[in-house]
Amino acid sequence: MTEEKGLTPRAQDFAAWYNEVVLRAELADYAPVRGCMVIRPYGYAIWELVQRALDEMFKQTGHQNAYFPLFIPQSYLAREAEHIEGFAPETAVVTLGGGKELEEPLVVRPTSEAIIWPIMAKWIQSYRDLPVLVNQWCNVVRWEMRTRPFLRTTEFLWQEGHTAHATEAEAEEEARRMLGIYRKFMEEGMAMPVLTGRKTEQGKFAGALRTYSLEALMQDNRALQAGTTHNLGQNFARAFEVTFQNEKGERDFVWNTSWGVSTRLIGALVMSHGDDLGLVLPPRLAPVQVVIVPIYKADRERALVLEVAQRVSSVLQRMVRVRVDDRETLNPGAKYYEWDLKGVPLRIEIGPRDVTAQQVVVARRFVAGDGKRKITMREGEILASVERLLEDMQRELRARARQRREENSHRDVTSYEDLKAILEAKGGFVYTGWCGSPECEDRVKEEAKADIRVIPDDEFRSSKAPERCPVCGAASTQEVVWAKAY
Amino acid sequence: MTEEKGLTPRAQDFAAWYNEVVLRAELADYAPVRGCMVIRPYGYAIWELVQRALDEMFKQTGHQNAYFPLFIPQSYLAREAEHIEGFAPETAVVTLGGGKELEEPLVVRPTSEAIIWPIMAKWIQSYRDLPVLVNQWCNVVRWEMRTRPFLRTTEFLWQEGHTAHATEAEAEEEARRMLGIYRKFMEEGMAMPVLTGRKTEQGKFAGALRTYSLEALMQDNRALQAGTTHNLGQNFARAFEVTFQNEKGERDFVWNTSWGVSTRLIGALVMSHGDDLGLVLPPRLAPVQVVIVPIYKADRERALVLEVAQRVSSVLQRMVRVRVDDRETLNPGAKYYEWDLKGVPLRIEIGPRDVTAQQVVVARRFVAGDGKRKITMREGEILASVERLLEDMQRELRARARQRREENSHRDVTSYEDLKAILEAKGGFVYTGWCGSPECEDRVKEEAKADIRVIPDDEFRSSKAPERCPVCGAASTQEVVWAKAY
Repeated sequence: MTEEKGLTPRAQDFAAWYNEVVLRAELADYAPVRGCMVIRPYGYAIWELVQRALDEMFKQTGHQNAYFPLFIPQSYLAREAEHIEGFAPETAVVTLGGGKELEEPLVVRPTSEAIIWPIMAKWIQSYRDLPVLVNQWCNVVRWEMRTRPFLRTTEFLWQEGHTAHATEAEAEEEARRMLGIYRKFMEEGMAMPVLTGRKTEQGKFAGALRTYSLEALMQDNRALQAGTTHNLGQNFARAFEVTFQNEKGERDFVWNTSWGVSTRLIGALVMSHGDDLGLVLPPRLAPVQVVIVPIYKADRERALVLEVAQRVSSVLQRMVRVRVDDRETLNPGAKYYEWDLKGVPLRIEIGPRDVTAQQVVVARRFVAGDGKRKITMREGEILASVERLLEDMQRELRARARQRREENSHRDVTSYEDLKAILEAKGGFVYTGWCGSPECEDRVKEEAKADIRVIPDDEFRSSKAPERCPVCGAASTQEVVWAKAY
Repeated sequence: MTEEKGLTPRAQDFAAWYNEVVLRAELADYAPVRGCMVIRPYGYAIWELVQRALDEMFKQTGHQNAYFPLFIPQSYLAREAEHIEGFAPETAVVTLGGGKELEEPLVVRPTSEAIIWPIMAKWIQSYRDLPVLVNQWCNVVRWEMRTRPFLRTTEFLWQEGHTAHATEAEAEEEARRMLGIYRKFMEEGMAMPVLTGRKTEQGKFAGALRTYSLEALMQDNRALQAGTTHNLGQNFARAFEVTFQNEKGERDFVWNTSWGVSTRLIGALVMSHGDDLGLVLPPRLAPVQVVIVPIYKADRERALVLEVAQRVSSVLQRMVRVRVDDRETLNPGAKYYEWDLKGVPLRIEIGPRDVTAQQVVVARRFVAGDGKRKITMREGEILASVERLLEDMQRELRARARQRREENSHRDVTSYEDLKAILEAKGGFVYTGWCGSPECEDRVKEEAKADIRVIPDDEFRSSKAPERCPVCGAASTQEVVWAKAY
């Protein structure tokens, strides 16, 4: 990492900026395996915080973790027709095992419905065994043509929830509940506002009845699908004969859901909040929330300053993830540069004069509006002040992201020319009516490289329902949100 | 699960007992993929507790988690000669990706040295970048011929630590430190005493300079290798050109270690502590430490008893993992049977008479010696009493396992006839001298189906050093421990 060379500014080349942040903040690195990346310790520490927060929410809503095999016999994947059609082109296949050609090739899971349901079928006999609420944290593989760290890689880490229910209504409720849990995490944990809604037929998961999605707007005004939940109906239950005896004593197929978010969320964090100095992490997901940088010249000062730094650190670490950067090989400026790049929310500077005055200087990684970047505070009040600052920053970061999204949401777009012009010139979320035909969606895809991100949930709909589909002019059956997307 | 049919007694068929416990306690199930298993929620909850405890210990000693790719280009695996020789016969190989034959086949990682070091080589420039202390929690695949749930499966979950150091002494110290951490976890967390020591040349990891191992004795008197740590010397550094500039300004190869434990530990728990009623879990690794079973006949009693059960539960859950089993579909006897099978340390029975007397009955899953299985205690003292009981049980379980190991350790064995006879008739750990030749180890392997588990660490050595190798009669150069093993 060369300190001298700054990052490419976002306004100049957002994609280059993104890649530089990912590499130089040491979130990830390229791997010498096609389309794969390495998640470096700093990036993985963010993922661990994501996991911890989500896992707790899953467990609070009655889900249990389990682990199903990495390999899926090829014939299993083929049992659900839409599913195999969607996933076959992007699978990695094991054909050799223990030095011999396998009788049946094994697909490395791209998602686990086709291995989980044939197994769980054995465990479900009666309505008393339902609901089954299972989740797994694992790696999956999809043979992607164009890959970018976190956003699209051949192998990625994710969680996949899989549930079985006695009725369609319960499955629908579960798909909706998990959408709500994801939304809560993204908005409160990631400080990232999301649009929620239903995917069109073309956008839904291969094999699902309905797919719900959470869409966030990145700083380059492209949408990022941050997570999805699926009401799978009885499609997989039929394919894998997952039946149960209902309360009337009849055999019936279960109703399934699945839902997942992945390490892609780390890419979403980068592109939601980062600036030209690097990463900006929401305090709740910052592996280091406060870094303390001791400042000294003479050796005599060093001992004094480090002693106070350690004391402040031990006070803060009761409630905060704190680190003292006592590296001798870097000067304070180089440390500031590095921790700004890594998005640490607060930096505490302690020099000999601060020691004498029993104070510290706290620098915020970002300020909202015309707020002050540096605050001097008395050592005695530091814990309460830092906690409050971190909470403020979390809230302000979210408000800033929300404001940016609102400024880049375009409603009341009624003509096809306007739709295309906005998508091409500005990007962002564009709300229009839609006739419901895939042909109109395809035309926008082809001509403006954008698609329908969601049929938005009620709360996101425009106050006045749009009247016409801007593409064909026919009457609108639902409002939709268009965007170019990752 | 049929309640009526008990488990096969351990004394009758230990292997059958093991499989039944694993399946019926719902730890795992077979998968329709060759040699693979499913870890069911109850088994996975144990694994999560194992992970949490170990992960904390790793982080306290400065290690950070990361994630490296699942796939290793075949040519990489081949770069370290011993390594490829050891692992090539048991690899699963991806030859198709995205519908096309790959130019270079990708091996599904059997262990990650061959992908981690070529990547980390880029990150290490100078002695200032050392040590590198990384760990990953992941799945690995080894194409095993004979598999058994948890003990040996084609795919399994593990953690693999990988470190790089500036000197041989530091690498050796790290391999030793991690051996100590594993031992502490196994003895204190799992209540499972382990022998530690060095593996012979034949027993070491393919590519290592030295392998250290932790060996536990199962109830059928077979040894189980519970974990290993490796001083890899500069073998992988040379193969993957992992160099650094030392303090003198010279380029040198780094010194590496690796170390791992896997879901095999769950099998070790089963076979260390289980009894003919099923699993016996050490309290620290029990997903449910206390189960509360309400006992009632009339509906009027039900509300009363459940109210107290919930009250007791909410007191306990401050410090203890507790669950109220309020299922209407099972009678208390069936619940006792199930929770005994699942190894829950304490069961609290609450009936109408207990409610009146403001007391509860606590039943221990196991008792040491002639201790009492059931204890009546006043509701007001329950939290302190339960906490103390769980601590007692943890300690007693460990003492019992330790005593069993000592009773089945045979020292002062000097003749080859005795060595073979003990290994065949009794099993257990057999201490003898050894001349150091692989031929003598091979002979025992062939004739008694046992091998040298470890060259034991000092504290495990017999007070009087053995004089001769019992196999060939030559002078002993070191004491060794023989056993039949999993």
